[in-house]
Amino acid sequence: MNIKKINELREWMQNNQVEVAYVSNPSSIAYLTGFESDPHERVLALFIHADKAPFLFTPAMEVPEAKKAFSEDVIGYLDTQNPWQIILNELKSRFGQFKKMALEKNQLSVERFEILKDGLATVDFSADITPILQQIQLVKTPEEIQTLLEAGHWADVAFEIGFKALKEKVTEQEIVAEIEYQLKKQGVSKMSFDTLILFGDNAANPHGNPGSLQLRNHDFALFDLGVVWKGYCSDATRTVSFKEPTAKQREVYEVVLQAQLAAQNAVKPGITAQELDAIARNVITDAGYGEYFTHRLGHGIGTTVHEFPSIVEGNAMVLKEGMCFSIEPGIYIPNEVGVRIEDCVYVTKDGCQSFTQTPKELIVL
Amino acid sequence: MNIKKINELREWMQNNQVEVAYVSNPSSIAYLTGFESDPHERVLALFIHADKAPFLFTPAMEVPEAKKAFSEDVIGYLDTQNPWQIILNELKSRFGQFKKMALEKNQLSVERFEILKDGLATVDFSADITPILQQIQLVKTPEEIQTLLEAGHWADVAFEIGFKALKEKVTEQEIVAEIEYQLKKQGVSKMSFDTLILFGDNAANPHGNPGSLQLRNHDFALFDLGVVWKGYCSDATRTVSFKEPTAKQREVYEVVLQAQLAAQNAVKPGITAQELDAIARNVITDAGYGEYFTHRLGHGIGTTVHEFPSIVEGNAMVLKEGMCFSIEPGIYIPNEVGVRIEDCVYVTKDGCQSFTQTPKELIVL
Repeated sequence: MNIKKINELREWMQNNQVEVAYVSNPSSIAYLTGFESDPHERVLALFIHADKAPFLFTPAMEVPEAKKAFSEDVIGYLDTQNPWQIILNELKSRFGQFKKMALEKNQLSVERFEILKDGLATVDFSADITPILQQIQLVKTPEEIQTLLEAGHWADVAFEIGFKALKEKVTEQEIVAEIEYQLKKQGVSKMSFDTLILFGDNAANPHGNPGSLQLRNHDFALFDLGVVWKGYCSDATRTVSFKEPTAKQREVYEVVLQAQLAAQNAVKPGITAQELDAIARNVITDAGYGEYFTHRLGHGIGTTVHEFPSIVEGNAMVLKEGMCFSIEPGIYIPNEVGVRIEDCVYVTKDGCQSFTQTPKELIVL
Repeated sequence: MNIKKINELREWMQNNQVEVAYVSNPSSIAYLTGFESDPHERVLALFIHADKAPFLFTPAMEVPEAKKAFSEDVIGYLDTQNPWQIILNELKSRFGQFKKMALEKNQLSVERFEILKDGLATVDFSADITPILQQIQLVKTPEEIQTLLEAGHWADVAFEIGFKALKEKVTEQEIVAEIEYQLKKQGVSKMSFDTLILFGDNAANPHGNPGSLQLRNHDFALFDLGVVWKGYCSDATRTVSFKEPTAKQREVYEVVLQAQLAAQNAVKPGITAQELDAIARNVITDAGYGEYFTHRLGHGIGTTVHEFPSIVEGNAMVLKEGMCFSIEPGIYIPNEVGVRIEDCVYVTKDGCQSFTQTPKELIVL
C-alpha cells in the first residue's frame, strides 16, 4: 500500500472539497494499493475518504490476494450478489452522508456512473480524479526509476534474443515466439504489449501485426517490445537490417536516428513536451520526410505503457526531473520502407538517461 | 464488414427512435466492421445512423488498415488534432440534426460522454446499445461456431504441449513459455488471456498467477488457457495429477468432474442459465464442498473471452441453439487442493457440443 501517494490524493481532495474518491482503473488501484488484478467485467473499486480509512472492494475470490497487499479493509462480493448494493451500503455505513464524490472519469464507464448517480442522488459527481492521479504518478521516485531500468534491461535482452534469431525465411511470428519464450524461461511473466516484429514493407505500417511474412535479404526488421517487471513497463524499438541495406534504406534510417538523438540530447528539466516533439519533427521535415512521420514523438511510461506526459505538439507541459517517457520518431513510406527508433528515458537534473542500452547506430546482421 | 449485424442494430434503433448509435468498444467495432485494433488512449469510434451510411473514425495511421476491412468512409485524425472537434463536425455534416444518440454504456468512459454531452447539448443520451450488441452476438452462426471449434482445437493442442512438458522441478512459468512458444511457432498469434498454469497449493487460488513454483510429485497442475483464432476465443481448463494423487485429491477431482458433466449433459434449448449453475453447484454442495466453489458456473464466449450469457444464479435467461458459453465448476480448498474443469460448449438443437476434446477423466502423468 502506497500511503504517501494516497495522502497526496487526499490533500488534493481536501483542497477541492471532495470527501470521497472512487478509484476504478485497475492500474491506478495497483499503484495505490499494491494489489494487481484484472477483474474483467467484475467490479474492482477503491474508495478513499478525505479523512476516514479507505476500503477496497473486490470479487470474493480475490480477497485473500488483495489482503496480502492492502492493509485496510477489503470487502468481497460473490457472483450471485449485486456489487453496487454492497458498495452503497458500505459507503453509507463507513462514510456517512457526503456531498461530493470524485470519479476516475477517463476510465469509469457510463453504465457504472449512472448506477452510482441513481444510488447517490444528492451527491455531486463533477470532480475528476484523472488529472491528479496522472500528476502523482508523473514524477518517478528513485526506486521506481530503478525498477524501470530493470524493465529496460529485459527489453535489451529481448533485442539480443531477437537479433540472434534472424535468418533467411524466418517469419515475424517465429521471432515473437522465440523472444517471449526465452524471456519467460528467464522469469519475465508478462510483455507490456503485444510484441511487434515487422519485416520489410510491413514495417512501413506503424500499427502492423506480425504474421507469417518471411525475412528476405536486405529487409529491415523492426522490433517494438517491452516487458512488465515488478509492475513497471519497458517499451523500446530498434530497426535492424538483414544483410546490406539499399542507399535509400540507409538514408531513411539516418534521418530517424538523427531525429531521435536530437530530441534525446535536448531533454532536460525546463524544456516542454511540444518543444521536444518539434526538435525531432524538424529533423525529419527538413530531410523531406515530414509527411511520413504520422504520430506523436512519445508517451509517458510507468506502471502503464502509455501514460502522461504525451510528447506532442500542443502539450506545453514543462518537463521535470524524474519524468519518464518515450522518444520514438519514425518514417513510414508505404510499400517501401519503415523505420522507428525508440528509447524511453527519465529526466535527470541536467539531461536524461535511457532505460535501454542497445546501440542505435544501424546494425547490419 | 458485417452488414447483416449492422442492420440488426439499425432495426433496434428504428424501433427505439434512436437516430445515431456510437459504438466505442474495440471488440464491438471489430465485430461489426471487421477492423481489429487496440487504440489504447486514442479514439476509435463507429457511428451508425438509422438510415444513412455509417462512418468509422480512427487514428490517421490506422486508416489504411481500417479501409481494408470496412467499405464505408473511414475518417482519420492526427495526434496533434482534437478528435472530438472532427467527430462533432462529421456528425453534423453527415447526419444533420438528430435528437437521440445511443451509447455503449458498459464501455464508454464518463470523460468522453461528458465531451459529447457538451458538444451535442440538445441530444438525448438515455439509450444504451450494450444490451442489443450483446443480443446480436449471443446466438452464433454456423460459420462462427466453426471458427470457435478451430480456436478450441488450439486449446487442445496447448494442453498436449503442456502435459508433455511436465516434469519434476519444472516451474509454472516454464510451462507457460513452452505452450505459448509452440503455439506461436505454429501460427497462433495471440492467447485469449494470460495463460494460467498453477501447481499444488497455488491451484487452490482461483486467480493465482504462474511464477517460479516448481512441480513436485503428487501435485495437481491446473491449466487454464485459450487462444484468439480468426478473431474468436477459446477458453478451457484441465487439472492433471503429476504422479499418483492422494485419496483426498482424487475425491475432490471426482466431485468437480461429476458437477461439470452433470451441467454439460443438462444443456439443451429451453433450460435457463441459472438452472445449469444450480445443477453443478448442487453436486458440489451435496458432496460437502459448496463453500469452496466461489464463482459462477460460466460465461459466454465469442469474439471476447467473457461475454453474455453469464451462467449464474439470478440469470433466468433461457438458453437457445447457437449460444456459446463455458461450464467451469471448481473446488478451491486453501493450502490444500484446487481443481477446475472447464469446457466451452455451443447449444445444439437437443443438447450441446464442446469446443475442446481433451479428456476430462483424471489424467495421471
